[in-house]
Amino acid sequence: MKAKVHVTLKPGVLDPQGKAVSHALDALGFTGVEDVRQGKYIEVDLAETDPAKAREAVDRMCRELLANTVIENYTVEIEG
Amino acid sequence: MKAKVHVTLKPGVLDPQGKAVSHALDALGFTGVEDVRQGKYIEVDLAETDPAKAREAVDRMCRELLANTVIENYTVEIEG
Repeated sequence: MKAKVHVTLKPGVLDPQGKAVSHALDALGFTGVEDVRQGKYIEVDLAETDPAKAREAVDRMCRELLANTVIENYTVEIEG
Repeated sequence: MKAKVHVTLKPGVLDPQGKAVSHALDALGFTGVEDVRQGKYIEVDLAETDPAKAREAVDRMCRELLANTVIENYTVEIEG
């Protein structure tokens, strides 16, 4: 089964990459862009077939590797 | 309104970052990880209040800046 993981910076944490994108959009002539935040999107294909176990494993992956939980939040979606 | 953009590598395009994550998960003792693909997740806050116009603008942002359409796909979701 497949897990879709979003890792985003916590609110209040500075996002220089998002700011750079925002300035670049401005330079390209896009008006009305109020804020840009950039995160990571990770798809993990798992051999596991039990959704609960898959979620538990991916949650642990996030805490141990994929996200820096001091400054980042993560969400996990499991697909059949 | 807010736009949520996912930028992912097209199928068949090598993903060294995903491979590195996959190997790292393996080294951490996670078994059953068959594949990892890493993409970008970008949230754009817009002053625009018309969903159709917002989508059109973000679609153009993707083509001009956010995605490299030679090797990447993108999806845009608009939220009220």
